[in-house]
Amino acid sequence: MTTPPSGSVAALGEFGLVEAVTAKLSQGRGVLLGPGDDAAVVSAPDGRVVVTTDVLVEGRHFRRDWSGANDVGRKAAAQSLADIAAMGAKPTALVVGIATPPDLPVTWAVELAVGLQSECSPLGVSVVGGDVVRGESVVISVTALGDLQGRKPVTRAGAEAGDVVAVVGRLGWSAAGMAVLQRGFRSPRVLADAHRRPEPPYAQGVKAAVAGAHAMCDVSDGLLADLGHLARASKVRIELDSTRFEITDPLMAAGAALGVDPLSWVLTGGEDHALVATFPAGVRRPRGWVSIGEVVEGEGVLVDGEPWPGPAGHDHFA
Amino acid sequence: MTTPPSGSVAALGEFGLVEAVTAKLSQGRGVLLGPGDDAAVVSAPDGRVVVTTDVLVEGRHFRRDWSGANDVGRKAAAQSLADIAAMGAKPTALVVGIATPPDLPVTWAVELAVGLQSECSPLGVSVVGGDVVRGESVVISVTALGDLQGRKPVTRAGAEAGDVVAVVGRLGWSAAGMAVLQRGFRSPRVLADAHRRPEPPYAQGVKAAVAGAHAMCDVSDGLLADLGHLARASKVRIELDSTRFEITDPLMAAGAALGVDPLSWVLTGGEDHALVATFPAGVRRPRGWVSIGEVVEGEGVLVDGEPWPGPAGHDHFA
Repeated sequence: MTTPPSGSVAALGEFGLVEAVTAKLSQGRGVLLGPGDDAAVVSAPDGRVVVTTDVLVEGRHFRRDWSGANDVGRKAAAQSLADIAAMGAKPTALVVGIATPPDLPVTWAVELAVGLQSECSPLGVSVVGGDVVRGESVVISVTALGDLQGRKPVTRAGAEAGDVVAVVGRLGWSAAGMAVLQRGFRSPRVLADAHRRPEPPYAQGVKAAVAGAHAMCDVSDGLLADLGHLARASKVRIELDSTRFEITDPLMAAGAALGVDPLSWVLTGGEDHALVATFPAGVRRPRGWVSIGEVVEGEGVLVDGEPWPGPAGHDHFA
Repeated sequence: MTTPPSGSVAALGEFGLVEAVTAKLSQGRGVLLGPGDDAAVVSAPDGRVVVTTDVLVEGRHFRRDWSGANDVGRKAAAQSLADIAAMGAKPTALVVGIATPPDLPVTWAVELAVGLQSECSPLGVSVVGGDVVRGESVVISVTALGDLQGRKPVTRAGAEAGDVVAVVGRLGWSAAGMAVLQRGFRSPRVLADAHRRPEPPYAQGVKAAVAGAHAMCDVSDGLLADLGHLARASKVRIELDSTRFEITDPLMAAGAALGVDPLSWVLTGGEDHALVATFPAGVRRPRGWVSIGEVVEGEGVLVDGEPWPGPAGHDHFA
């Protein structure tokens, strides 16, 4: 046995690590029993609970040399919280599993917890439990719970011909940020930051549900890929109009610098966790939602009347 | 790009893999929306939901050369389901995250799903969602939900001086099985099997809660380690009587073959997921619970009046 490096999670031990991480968490009103027991107990006033899980792997979803632990924590939380929002539900609680090499600095693990808490706090969400085990690289699993507040869940399967397709939140920023970081650039800074830490429009999920959205999902794999799932689940075709997308200045700048058409980031970049929904034609959409196309009979997703020639988004094994 | 090996998850792709795995799952009555959307929706009739998460890492919690995928699936499910039972709750649903190397055979992933489903089915539990991502080694995170059916959760903090400490389920079998497998032996077969696949006494969790147990936990790290947490949370001392433990024939045989005192497996071996609880002295315990000691004022855990000289159980980073 060699002595673990000072300041590493191995030197602190499993229970010391759990204590250090838990100290950074605060428990909100809906938490009936927080961390420290075999399981937590969370209020589910609706009599139903929404649940989703996501896994982030070092080297694939984040790089420790590109992102600080705080950003990784925020990104990990955001990924699952956005899924809850995309059902039209209010997120309530997270549980987090972490596999880590024994030489991980304790400060990194503690900052990860701070990041998780920072993403959760504005939403009134609590991190109520977790598990920490030894692994080869850092793997983070986040499971989020949510409350439907008496409403029907807004699934991917409810789109109807005649609906308007609308989106809220950033598209392509994270993908452009990754492209920038991969070339060793640091600017546009806003794009690199967007890759490190998405800013999903959480509150818009409930607003869209209340407004009567027929179908909704978050954009995690890429707009065309995620709309492809939605079109398949709803047995409809989605026709997008590329002129309706605003190509913002940072995307224009990065596209020019890297020789990439920024529209491809907008249409196929994932991980920004924008929300995309279909609304009945007559419905007043909540402020911020931008119409990008229509639902018609048929199948698949068309851009300006044509199938998109490239990949529609991200496949973890492609 | 090289061509991924035929029959590997990389050859099938993320969405094909998810489809193949999901096909092995069946959805019970409490599932209001199953796999395939951003999140699932599960009934929570009590108005509260119990939630716990656990992570299993290849090479630490299981070895693919020792355990088939079916056993790994059952073990992964069992670990979280036992946590729900240990709160006195009825498990209702699981979500599962999997990181996997791209060369993992699809058959392994599908058998894993069969194992998860097999562990869940007798309990009326459904696997309602998940995530599959690429990683360096197989990492499985399982989050379980449960229903308290109107009862108070049975925590680790409720033990009182005068309580009887009782246990139900196997102790030390998994640890002895691992010791046997580590030496390259295959027998006693029942111990190797117990290591591959625990058999937690799930139904006893609710029974103990109904009977009025003051405190409860499952034995995942080792009896002395887990009772140590319980004693600390309850601010009591626990005194165990080693003569009350039945040392079964397989443990005797393995102990003799390996030169190990089988009592050390019983007291410090984890992963069998027995349930240990404290009951008020006058209470009639449900059938199967064996009295192993008493709760007194003070702190710590004593065996026959003395602190246990060795490690109390498992620290993932020790």
